[in-house]
Amino acid sequence: MAHEFKTQRRVSFAETDCAGIAHFSGFFRYMEDAEHEFLRSLGLSVQHESDDGSVVGFPRISAHCEFSRAVRFEDVVDIHLWLSGRRKSVLEYSFRLSCEGQEVAIGELVVIACRVTPDHALEVADLPAPFADQLEVAPYGPLEFRSRTGKQSGGDS
Amino acid sequence: MAHEFKTQRRVSFAETDCAGIAHFSGFFRYMEDAEHEFLRSLGLSVQHESDDGSVVGFPRISAHCEFSRAVRFEDVVDIHLWLSGRRKSVLEYSFRLSCEGQEVAIGELVVIACRVTPDHALEVADLPAPFADQLEVAPYGPLEFRSRTGKQSGGDS
Amino acid sequence: MAHEFKTQRRVSFAETDCAGIAHFSGFFRYMEDAEHEFLRSLGLSVQHESDDGSVVGFPRISAHCEFSRAVRFEDVVDIHLWLSGRRKSVLEYSFRLSCEGQEVAIGELVVIACRVTPDHALEVADLPAPFADQLEVAPYGPLEFRSRTGKQSGGDS
Amino acid sequence: MAHEFKTQRRVSFAETDCAGIAHFSGFFRYMEDAEHEFLRSLGLSVQHESDDGSVVGFPRISAHCEFSRAVRFEDVVDIHLWLSGRRKSVLEYSFRLSCEGQEVAIGELVVIACRVTPDHALEVADLPAPFADQLEVAPYGPLEFRSRTGKQSGGDS
Repeated sequence: MAHEFKTQRRVSFAETDCAGIAHFSGFFRYMEDAEHEFLRSLGLSVQHESDDGSVVGFPRISAHCEFSRAVRFEDVVDIHLWLSGRRKSVLEYSFRLSCEGQEVAIGELVVIACRVTPDHALEVADLPAPFADQLEVAPYGPLEFRSRTGKQSGGDS
Repeated sequence: MAHEFKTQRRVSFAETDCAGIAHFSGFFRYMEDAEHEFLRSLGLSVQHESDDGSVVGFPRISAHCEFSRAVRFEDVVDIHLWLSGRRKSVLEYSFRLSCEGQEVAIGELVVIACRVTPDHALEVADLPAPFADQLEVAPYGPLEFRSRTGKQSGGDS
Repeated sequence: MAHEFKTQRRVSFAETDCAGIAHFSGFFRYMEDAEHEFLRSLGLSVQHESDDGSVVGFPRISAHCEFSRAVRFEDVVDIHLWLSGRRKSVLEYSFRLSCEGQEVAIGELVVIACRVTPDHALEVADLPAPFADQLEVAPYGPLEFRSRTGKQSGGDS
Repeated sequence: MAHEFKTQRRVSFAETDCAGIAHFSGFFRYMEDAEHEFLRSLGLSVQHESDDGSVVGFPRISAHCEFSRAVRFEDVVDIHLWLSGRRKSVLEYSFRLSCEGQEVAIGELVVIACRVTPDHALEVADLPAPFADQLEVAPYGPLEFRSRTGKQSGGDS
């Protein structure tokens, strides 16, 4: 059983913006790529081919990130992913991103197993057996998002 | 005083993914672009040039989106933005995205006014006067995110 | 019969990079989006559903852009597309991008009609009839790319 | 003196499109990231800080790619970069991208050294000394682009 994964990522030039820092939307791609790398490390794919030939994917139902420091071109971001929730069809991944030992962001992706129907609609499905067999919730508390706790952010009073 | 803005956006081919739907990270760009369009409609820019020549920008300190339906290539997304919070340095924008009358996502961006220092660091600043003069909080309640209310999502029990 | 199209596009914040200008890769998305808008204006889609239910798409076989000026956040780019070549399966689009009357880039996309086979492979197909019926080559000469004419670029001798 | 570099890249989910393949615009980012990785391997950065404190960057003046095969989510792309041209201010990089031993694309980026002036304009500059000292043209012939040789592509006659 696995519950966490660590990886690194270097900020690309194209990921920066004219404020000179990595654009915030890229953090969601970092988190998703880390999720997929975690699954690959277990022999799983986020595009799961079932035994019956159907494909189960994991569309995101929630994505959340809080940013505390900027990162810049060529910075290396350390990404710590852990599974913070698991239900019949839903996986909740939490992320802590840091750079040179300082936290830069925390994030969360909530995804739901869906089977793609022949007419390209999405239909909620149970977690595929290899996911259910190998993934367990990490022994860490949930992330404390400022917006969830009611504490607001950033130097204001 | 302004507190809301409505715009539209058509899903680009490059914004879709191999699940056949718009990739979730694009919704954060949609929301940000709508914010900038709202500001432009008031003669403001998210890269604000102060009278003293310094630039005040608005890095995001939180970005959150919950997704309820997929959208696809060439779908037109209706975006409703409103200012759901305002403090000394912080603006909180809420978003409701729909397609053909059906909600597809709700989202929130929290941004903080920062002055770029000569050595390219970011320093919290007050809202520039033209922002403070023209922006007011909308008379709508806050968004009810599933993750904030504790209600979880998506067909599981 | 149609052979050209004009549209506009405003540079998004996320499309800029830490050099303070629109990242070059975004120009390819601008060109592609203009192509799709051109087709839509004719009632066509780049994802063409044939009468037999199969889908014909247009993967790119060549993409080329030469850049002469930078554009920045909130600049409005004028895009002029014209059909510069057409063969049995291939369409060649040329593009001139300008900003405030000054050329910023020229580009070319060459695309090939392909049917997606049941096992997700791509198979070259004839131009679908509605494309063949409505698209004609523009009465303009081909673009003179520096690299094609052997003239090299940019202030060097 | 260095003239080439090899690296690998795995196709991300967000880089795919609804045709089920990696979107073509991503190849330009792959090429650019490989260029920057090549420079880093030599202790150089594409954002070069000169001894006088000014920054020399390398905006692209031409970007060209020809595509021969599709790649998909989780495919690993082998990237071979070589320096195919070098003049006073200009570097020309050529690329061959392959997957499991089969060529998927060839490409070219032509970049020009520019100093950013205090008013944020770009001004052509000589190659910085560490670039001139370490980079040499590779002993390979130039790429034969179909569009350059006049041979057109793709199953048509």
